[in-house]
Amino acid sequence: MYREKIKVLDCTIRDGGLINNHYFTDAFVREVYKALSASGIDYMEFGYRNSRDLFPPSDYGEWKYCDDDKIREIIDGVESELKISIMVDAHRVKDQQFAPADESPVDMIRVATYVKDMDKAIALVNRSHDLGYETTVNIMAISKEIEPDMIEALDQLAKSPVDVVYVVDSYGALYCEQIEYLVKLFRKHLPESKEIGIHCHNNQQLAFSNTIEAIIHNANYLDASLYGIGRGPGNCCLELLMGFLKNPKFKLSPILKIIEEQMLPMQKDIEWGYLIPYMITGILNEHPRAGIAMRKTKDKDKYAKFYEEIREMVG
Amino acid sequence: MYREKIKVLDCTIRDGGLINNHYFTDAFVREVYKALSASGIDYMEFGYRNSRDLFPPSDYGEWKYCDDDKIREIIDGVESELKISIMVDAHRVKDQQFAPADESPVDMIRVATYVKDMDKAIALVNRSHDLGYETTVNIMAISKEIEPDMIEALDQLAKSPVDVVYVVDSYGALYCEQIEYLVKLFRKHLPESKEIGIHCHNNQQLAFSNTIEAIIHNANYLDASLYGIGRGPGNCCLELLMGFLKNPKFKLSPILKIIEEQMLPMQKDIEWGYLIPYMITGILNEHPRAGIAMRKTKDKDKYAKFYEEIREMVG
Repeated sequence: MYREKIKVLDCTIRDGGLINNHYFTDAFVREVYKALSASGIDYMEFGYRNSRDLFPPSDYGEWKYCDDDKIREIIDGVESELKISIMVDAHRVKDQQFAPADESPVDMIRVATYVKDMDKAIALVNRSHDLGYETTVNIMAISKEIEPDMIEALDQLAKSPVDVVYVVDSYGALYCEQIEYLVKLFRKHLPESKEIGIHCHNNQQLAFSNTIEAIIHNANYLDASLYGIGRGPGNCCLELLMGFLKNPKFKLSPILKIIEEQMLPMQKDIEWGYLIPYMITGILNEHPRAGIAMRKTKDKDKYAKFYEEIREMVG
Repeated sequence: MYREKIKVLDCTIRDGGLINNHYFTDAFVREVYKALSASGIDYMEFGYRNSRDLFPPSDYGEWKYCDDDKIREIIDGVESELKISIMVDAHRVKDQQFAPADESPVDMIRVATYVKDMDKAIALVNRSHDLGYETTVNIMAISKEIEPDMIEALDQLAKSPVDVVYVVDSYGALYCEQIEYLVKLFRKHLPESKEIGIHCHNNQQLAFSNTIEAIIHNANYLDASLYGIGRGPGNCCLELLMGFLKNPKFKLSPILKIIEEQMLPMQKDIEWGYLIPYMITGILNEHPRAGIAMRKTKDKDKYAKFYEEIREMVG
């Protein structure tokens, strides 16, 4: 599978940081930057630019804020063509600062939003675009949205300066036919000049295959992460995606190397991957938070009980 | 997804037994039988009927042979509508005994074969069919076969009394579009009276999604296993498949219960699941044996080195 327009974005630090409040060491983030640079993929997402008022620095690591100076410190001296993205939550904006793009190490600002917050998302896109950044809008929890609301949001986005609009399966609930439907719906309501992106969660071991499904229907911006690290079960594995894309510019060895040296030891400290509680929230189309909570209790492997409780809860 | 003709077969003991030379305890096999009976799925495969001359009993557990009496011992006294299958290798037949079906606890004999051994497979099908068994032919390593050979094999099978013909992705190498192509090819060359089956390996986290793809193109016999247990990375997870099928006759709770009680502890002793060496053999369309071998060495997590070695080896 080779298509020149395809861009791969690694969200290891950003989505993986949702497991550990973005407490990654500088050394680790620099190793990821070096490995991704060597692998030839397109973007690395360093984290969120969140407000320190909403997320106090006593509780979160540096990658919750992604200050330009902090990013510069990490990338300093590394030969790289990797572009850098950061994410902003449309519904949690408070006084974040953005330098003009040409004074920042950041290339792309990605706005994560629910359909209901689309006006806020577009305001952020306008602001970022005017500062010279590439922009995306990532529509989260898409498996819970109804079609008229989605279409209204897409029609608004069609008129905005946004470059890429992402289908985000936050709950890992979607099957391939639903991915096909959504990507086609996005394609239908957005002008050709805008690209479609895909971000999947691996609750049902479908993150990779649903990413392929999106590619087949012309999504060109693809999110993945090292060894699939990410909230709950995690994301599409970057190593799998590279194997599928077979783009000659990609080098798999640096990715395998950082998985063995960094991700394997990390998995002993923080948990992600295919686990039954996340499978259960996925098949029930629910946020993984109940699964995340139960994994911190002594009943973390009482799957049948959890299943009955969740079914009771969601009716 | 509900289609009356769909039949789900659990291959926990048979494919899982390839990890531990079929040394499962009677107690475990009985627990699996009880859980599957309570879950409402259709078939349980107990193992292989291999010859004790080819596989000496000093080296293998009971489920390498699946004697009728042994199966009877396990199922005795359990209320169940579960059908029972066993597997025979077409290329390793030597004096195996088969009682007439109405004197055996076994309902279905599945013949595993490579395309080149199709004549042997069909001889076994004829023999099993004449004894009154349901029969399948499972075409292994299908990702390595060329189309004219496959078509010749399918044309032979079309004239045989076999009930079901399986696409078996032994190497976990296939993507959804290739599954679509193969299932359609099988459908085209087999009469309507014969069903198509699908058996996937999870090297690239595609076993479940490729099973869905096969379902979409009218495969009706679906292999899966508890928590995905099986050789190398394992198979399609039964729990995921049940979630997708949403057949009201299925009960997920007994499956979640046996996963927490039996499969989780077992995974501490024997290894299966998504591991980078199997991803590598999968993307290179190779047998997992090199991965299985390296997982038993001190270099079991030297992924980049393994990747370079395997690429060297396969040219």
